[in-house]
Amino acid sequence: MNNFFSTETICARATAPGKGGIAVIRLSGQDAFRIASQFFQKGGKNIDLATQEPRKALFGLWLREEELIDEVVLLPFFAPHSFTGEDCIEVSCHGSPYIVTQILETMTQAGARIARAGEFSQRAYLNGKMDLSSAEAVADIIASESKAQHRMAMKQLRGGYSQEFNELREELLRFTGLMELELDFAEEDVEFADRTELLKLEKLVVSKIWKLIDSFKLGNAVKNGIPVAIVGATNVGKSTLLNSLLGEERAIVSDIHGTTRDTIEDTIHLGGYLFRFVDTAGIRETKDEIEALGIERSRNKIQEAQIILAVLDAQRIEETEDIKQQLVLFPQDSEAKVILLINKTENLSSEECKSLEGKLRQSFNLDEVLSISAKEELALDTLKDKLVSLMENQSEQASDIVVSNLRHQELLLSAKECLERLAEGLSNGLPTDLLTFELRSAISSIGEITGQAINRDDTLHYIFAHFCIGK
Amino acid sequence: MNNFFSTETICARATAPGKGGIAVIRLSGQDAFRIASQFFQKGGKNIDLATQEPRKALFGLWLREEELIDEVVLLPFFAPHSFTGEDCIEVSCHGSPYIVTQILETMTQAGARIARAGEFSQRAYLNGKMDLSSAEAVADIIASESKAQHRMAMKQLRGGYSQEFNELREELLRFTGLMELELDFAEEDVEFADRTELLKLEKLVVSKIWKLIDSFKLGNAVKNGIPVAIVGATNVGKSTLLNSLLGEERAIVSDIHGTTRDTIEDTIHLGGYLFRFVDTAGIRETKDEIEALGIERSRNKIQEAQIILAVLDAQRIEETEDIKQQLVLFPQDSEAKVILLINKTENLSSEECKSLEGKLRQSFNLDEVLSISAKEELALDTLKDKLVSLMENQSEQASDIVVSNLRHQELLLSAKECLERLAEGLSNGLPTDLLTFELRSAISSIGEITGQAINRDDTLHYIFAHFCIGK
Repeated sequence: MNNFFSTETICARATAPGKGGIAVIRLSGQDAFRIASQFFQKGGKNIDLATQEPRKALFGLWLREEELIDEVVLLPFFAPHSFTGEDCIEVSCHGSPYIVTQILETMTQAGARIARAGEFSQRAYLNGKMDLSSAEAVADIIASESKAQHRMAMKQLRGGYSQEFNELREELLRFTGLMELELDFAEEDVEFADRTELLKLEKLVVSKIWKLIDSFKLGNAVKNGIPVAIVGATNVGKSTLLNSLLGEERAIVSDIHGTTRDTIEDTIHLGGYLFRFVDTAGIRETKDEIEALGIERSRNKIQEAQIILAVLDAQRIEETEDIKQQLVLFPQDSEAKVILLINKTENLSSEECKSLEGKLRQSFNLDEVLSISAKEELALDTLKDKLVSLMENQSEQASDIVVSNLRHQELLLSAKECLERLAEGLSNGLPTDLLTFELRSAISSIGEITGQAINRDDTLHYIFAHFCIGK
Repeated sequence: MNNFFSTETICARATAPGKGGIAVIRLSGQDAFRIASQFFQKGGKNIDLATQEPRKALFGLWLREEELIDEVVLLPFFAPHSFTGEDCIEVSCHGSPYIVTQILETMTQAGARIARAGEFSQRAYLNGKMDLSSAEAVADIIASESKAQHRMAMKQLRGGYSQEFNELREELLRFTGLMELELDFAEEDVEFADRTELLKLEKLVVSKIWKLIDSFKLGNAVKNGIPVAIVGATNVGKSTLLNSLLGEERAIVSDIHGTTRDTIEDTIHLGGYLFRFVDTAGIRETKDEIEALGIERSRNKIQEAQIILAVLDAQRIEETEDIKQQLVLFPQDSEAKVILLINKTENLSSEECKSLEGKLRQSFNLDEVLSISAKEELALDTLKDKLVSLMENQSEQASDIVVSNLRHQELLLSAKECLERLAEGLSNGLPTDLLTFELRSAISSIGEITGQAINRDDTLHYIFAHFCIGK
């Protein structure tokens, strides 16, 4: 646990802005009790909050000299048993922006300063109350809008996530330990580390890192909405399908923050997942330059898709070449799942549907073929269930830990590169000190995910704890 | 104190909607502890919240079966020592709308129901935790945006307001006591109440009620913005004045909720008061029917004004008849304060200004005359100070208690009417039972303000406590 010492006491509104029944203000730092004691009165007199029972709510008044600002409930937390690990007071007042401003004003006049965004969590991290990735999870938890987002962020908050990285880091540290021993005893010509053994270890670690890197696509999709592209020839009912899918759930359609929402893009929650549907109407071969630019943009959207809904018109089944052509547009290495939808089947018997499905399943070599009617909303529930179960399968196949944070992803990629260079060096017989450098970079990257800086003590600890050299 | 018993346990988000660091959910009612105990785990196991220490915060997890919904801080309040007077639990969770919904869902699945608007305050009132006008003040406190609004609402919350009405009610009850004694002992031909004495008492009470009724104009202005009309001939600089007044403070210009904002109407905070400026450009004699309608509407706005800024052009001082005509448009009984502004004085010396001011002060018989330049923003601070000090004088002159609630105002008017009919009846020698009816109606109206229903016991209490008949 780090020991963090700040002389500054910070304060901020902790609840959402705007009007509500109550609002909560947090005051944290070494002067928190001294500051609050100046303004808080219980039973007509000021009391020393530092002498109060921890975590016991106090009802009283918040006054600026004679002026009554509000009736408040105070909750004192004593260091280190608080969110930040510092002395901390939570003030619940009436949920009026005016009152919140007044109370914050009294606090700043008495020496506190308004906290920067995330500063309470930062202090919690610096005081060892939570690691870096848990602190990062707090923001994701607050932003989470679906069950899957929430579950992923909660796992990160609760440390299951950090544990994975800490284990990874420990394996790498053990690795370094072996290598550095060799360095320290170089003149004695002792070779502790068997290079074949090291290569095996490196491969194991890299495969674990790969799995985590791989989970990012899922994690990112869960966080920002799983991209589903709707493709097909014109007039096969793509827009009707989009509207039918969205329409039923329009009440909970949600914006993706930070994303410009096109008119052809919208999100819905299905089975605890957030799906982002993209209507890609307009993809076709063209000689018009401007149209080509637009198509290029749409194509990028399609390439990002995790699921592709390829729509055919049951009445124009002979045009299947169109859709085949469109599917060819997708990168061959795309892992997107394709579901072929035969639309406008409202007038077909279920036998006719089955026969069509069978034919197309063969022709496209696709497992997922489904007869629907976007207009009559037939079989749309089956489609929704299919979308959800596709995601559930993916979630199950993914490692237990899903990376959704871009910073983590980049650190993982950088660690992987270091380890690959290390493997190359090991094979080519490069000197140990050069290899140690790569290894330490990899450890540093992994450590940065949970906020653990690497230092020599750490490495030493491993040498003596795990590889006792017999003295 | 009333005893209110509800079998329903209610829950709702208590903090403002939207995302924030934390959110607070309230759960209140006889099953609050039983419900929360089902979902809350501390140290890996469920605990019986009913056995916990009151008002002591508990950190733990909120789970739906195996699913972790959030890390939460629970604060248990035991009846009657809670906001509602019932068993009550406050759950602080991460400020994610998704999590809030999930927690509320667990509560409702376990038998609670979502609270109606104001239902927690309603229960607090029904359980005798606060009277009706205090409960009403909570809404005003949350909505308050200026120092004056806040001060007024806070006084109402803290009971100084209710005390005034309770005293008024007590005086009327004493009155009734006297009259009813006369009724009870009618056949014994005893006349307890001296009618002249009663008339005197009635006058005293009515004058108090009048003072409160009178305070409503101020109270309402403070609550909704003090209406200031800007009048004057065309092209004297009224709009420039409005823009200069608003412009400097535009950052804190605020909408008045529930009011359609015209382009010619806007509010600013000055010295802790909210002023609502109305640009009345366009008032003049006209034969055009449509224009007349518009002018009628503007005239109504002017009639509602508490302060009138009459603007003159220093270069066209000969047109003063225009403004005199406009001032004539105001109702003679209007209590609006008029400030005469001589605009466009940027090229005049201070002697010239003084001389002009003196002349116009005499000509208009007005105390408040001020030379300004709206364009160059000269003397606008003096004007703002004048506006604030006008309101401060009015607040000082007003009774200690300011009525700002329309419901209270209507009850006061109704009480006043009953008492006037009573006075008439007393003078005309009407029989006591008819007069008692008016009196009881007045008491009922006053009682409704703080939520005290009148009943026979109340009256009896007064007979025996204050007017002991010697046994």
